Amino acid sequence: MQKIQQNFYSKDIISVNQFTKADIDILFAQADLWREKVQSGAPITVLSGKIMANLFYEPSTRTSSSFIAAMQRLGGGFIPINDVHYSSVSKGENLADTIRTLEQYSDVIVLRHPEQGQALLATKASGKPIINAGDGIGEHPTQALLDLYTIQNSFGSLEGLTVTMVGDLKNGRTVHSLAQLLALYDVKLNYVAPRVLQMPITLCNQLKNSGIQQDEHETLDAVIADSNVIYVTRIQKERFDSLSDYEAVKDAFVITPEIMQSAPKDSILMHPLPRLAEIHPSVDRDPRAIYFKQVQNGMYVRMALLSLLLREELS
Amino acid sequence: MQKIQQNFYSKDIISVNQFTKADIDILFAQADLWREKVQSGAPITVLSGKIMANLFYEPSTRTSSSFIAAMQRLGGGFIPINDVHYSSVSKGENLADTIRTLEQYSDVIVLRHPEQGQALLATKASGKPIINAGDGIGEHPTQALLDLYTIQNSFGSLEGLTVTMVGDLKNGRTVHSLAQLLALYDVKLNYVAPRVLQMPITLCNQLKNSGIQQDEHETLDAVIADSNVIYVTRIQKERFDSLSDYEAVKDAFVITPEIMQSAPKDSILMHPLPRLAEIHPSVDRDPRAIYFKQVQNGMYVRMALLSLLLREELS
Amino acid sequence: MQKIQQNFYSKDIISVNQFTKADIDILFAQADLWREKVQSGAPITVLSGKIMANLFYEPSTRTSSSFIAAMQRLGGGFIPINDVHYSSVSKGENLADTIRTLEQYSDVIVLRHPEQGQALLATKASGKPIINAGDGIGEHPTQALLDLYTIQNSFGSLEGLTVTMVGDLKNGRTVHSLAQLLALYDVKLNYVAPRVLQMPITLCNQLKNSGIQQDEHETLDAVIADSNVIYVTRIQKERFDSLSDYEAVKDAFVITPEIMQSAPKDSILMHPLPRLAEIHPSVDRDPRAIYFKQVQNGMYVRMALLSLLLREELS
Repeated sequence: MQKIQQNFYSKDIISVNQFTKADIDILFAQADLWREKVQSGAPITVLSGKIMANLFYEPSTRTSSSFIAAMQRLGGGFIPINDVHYSSVSKGENLADTIRTLEQYSDVIVLRHPEQGQALLATKASGKPIINAGDGIGEHPTQALLDLYTIQNSFGSLEGLTVTMVGDLKNGRTVHSLAQLLALYDVKLNYVAPRVLQMPITLCNQLKNSGIQQDEHETLDAVIADSNVIYVTRIQKERFDSLSDYEAVKDAFVITPEIMQSAPKDSILMHPLPRLAEIHPSVDRDPRAIYFKQVQNGMYVRMALLSLLLREELS
Repeated sequence: MQKIQQNFYSKDIISVNQFTKADIDILFAQADLWREKVQSGAPITVLSGKIMANLFYEPSTRTSSSFIAAMQRLGGGFIPINDVHYSSVSKGENLADTIRTLEQYSDVIVLRHPEQGQALLATKASGKPIINAGDGIGEHPTQALLDLYTIQNSFGSLEGLTVTMVGDLKNGRTVHSLAQLLALYDVKLNYVAPRVLQMPITLCNQLKNSGIQQDEHETLDAVIADSNVIYVTRIQKERFDSLSDYEAVKDAFVITPEIMQSAPKDSILMHPLPRLAEIHPSVDRDPRAIYFKQVQNGMYVRMALLSLLLREELS
Repeated sequence: MQKIQQNFYSKDIISVNQFTKADIDILFAQADLWREKVQSGAPITVLSGKIMANLFYEPSTRTSSSFIAAMQRLGGGFIPINDVHYSSVSKGENLADTIRTLEQYSDVIVLRHPEQGQALLATKASGKPIINAGDGIGEHPTQALLDLYTIQNSFGSLEGLTVTMVGDLKNGRTVHSLAQLLALYDVKLNYVAPRVLQMPITLCNQLKNSGIQQDEHETLDAVIADSNVIYVTRIQKERFDSLSDYEAVKDAFVITPEIMQSAPKDSILMHPLPRLAEIHPSVDRDPRAIYFKQVQNGMYVRMALLSLLLREELS
């Protein structure tokens, strides 16, 4: 096990493409362990004396809070840097120098940046691990990992599942990353989106090479009954050429209690949050609606990552 | 004792009306204990591994800092969310979803919100305890509790005291809540305010039912000599119909060393802070001026609340 | 040793002028100790249960993060107050009342303020130690101490060194404070700056009284070969009467690999950061460029200060 952990210790977390199935097994086993410990109420001290710099160039309460909770639940400390206004960036410093500064104080740097590629750039400057917490239209690997972890938790395995992705699949960084992780397993992916917001062809071609089956649909009706996972994302008005184009399709992608009647009893309904109108609040009472459990799982997955990155040996 | 603690463990703290005298005894005994421990310099670890989300939709350095200090002094961690700009609220998420998200990461949520009723609303969404840290013109129960604790600390008991409230009693959330708590005891309340800013009739009627004596006055002279507690609040220019109305009365409600000469030697002068001109800085040297001790007591009362809410058994 | 420590325990840190050579020996020995402990990975708990209020009235990621990391690496907690917008200052409270409030919650207050003299003012209000983390054009003593510590670390001693300061020496708070600390030792100071930005006469006269040698130059060429330390600061366009004046001199004060060829092999190149164009990024690879090590040393020096201020006895 220790040998395999070498894929985590002191490493950067930049892209979902860096993970093998063996890595994911290690990570999820660790997440399971932390979940049990946290739920038992026992304090954890494995990262006592360690510091995480939480460098957010754009606001993200959910992700930022998740990392801060995760680090402290492991016994570690944190440096909150929440806003470009509160930063020497306002004096014109470049990202590399900011990263080189923060690595002097901390053991790991979590970076959220509005521009694609900046997380990778940060790794060039840093001798300490960088965790990409979202780089614009690039990646947000810990979101995809927590989504995958939630699916595995619900079904015990990731093999043989049908995952239906709904909403804006063209611009959704979240579904792109999740699809890439799912392609490591024997899954079928359904893409339900208005034509102008379908999954990018290049990504579909890449996924095809891994041998998984992918189907495109314009409405949920056709596939909901055969879905193990229904993964919903937001459709933003701004993505359409005209308001009438938007009005014409929007209702087909809103999840209601009626629509959920067609979904299998043991399916799960996911959403990366925040959600607006695309899932009706009355659906929250449906036990298949597990988007808030997703949030909690995010903390356990981030605890697992932080502990694997910062400890040479498992204990 | 443990049975009585069931009024705290896993409960929400929304309103002063939820407390019995027995609850307050429990709470203040716990606050006494933490005060002694903190002053002895001994580290406390009872909340190790626990996380408090500090969700402030409007700035409040004093209250926010007090909770953050309290939680850490108990060994716990915190998630600072200080500003609506730094929040997924800016993406349009509603309060319920934000609360449901934060409860996944934390063991207790402290909420300051500009709108009355939002703290109660938050409790509907959350399975974890909510502490109302001020909801607009609604309540700010921990402020009232720290005020009450300060009075008990000064006199050893809350029975038989005369408390004189001065300033804007119409709009002062602080004095409304404190008056309601004091009505649990055998006290006399004097209200000293310009007529347009007197205590609301509905509140006076409610308090009358509890059997306490209430008197209204327009100047402090009449009652200061018989006051055990002089509780001063701010009078804001904006509350008056005209500037001349304000100018006509304002000096009658400013505490100076001269005015304090009429107050009993063993009385105490309180203020919820921040204060502007309504207490002259030269009064700070008067040993009866205990508004900064009030601030410190706030930390002990919040430590007591946090530890009672989060621990099933006292230790 | 304990007697000498009385110059730290419960004291304020306001100005470099408050330190004797004996104080600095104590401080740097403690910083050495913390550096070893941190690098060994062992958690430190000497400040468990203690709280540091980090009150920043203007943004400074570097300094703020350094103190937050330092306090937590010692086992203590912190209250982050990052911005005047997030503060009861916006309700008009004066600094003295804010300080008196924060001292109720915390064991030490770190203050960054845009106006000279405010740190000293804060000490009048506070019974808890104040650390000046920069007060406008006044002082920034922990920056000077970390600079001095970095020099001592590089050469084993502070005696007999030649320190060349480059850039805007007129307005640079950093070089003023460092020069005052260096004057405690047998050093030679070279000032390399455009004439309009030379070291202030009053400071030169003050330093002359301590017996150190000071020389002014307009280019680096004349002195670089004889420098043990080259300390570079920013030159801001805005400081010149005209853009042409600036253009005429700016290149003489930019450090490039070519210029570094003239510097001694065992010299060190320092900068308080953030740097803009005054040190070319390709210089970063030069082992003599130690400005990021400076940053790290800042954390150890601040750990030393915090632990000496807050503990009555050394352990």
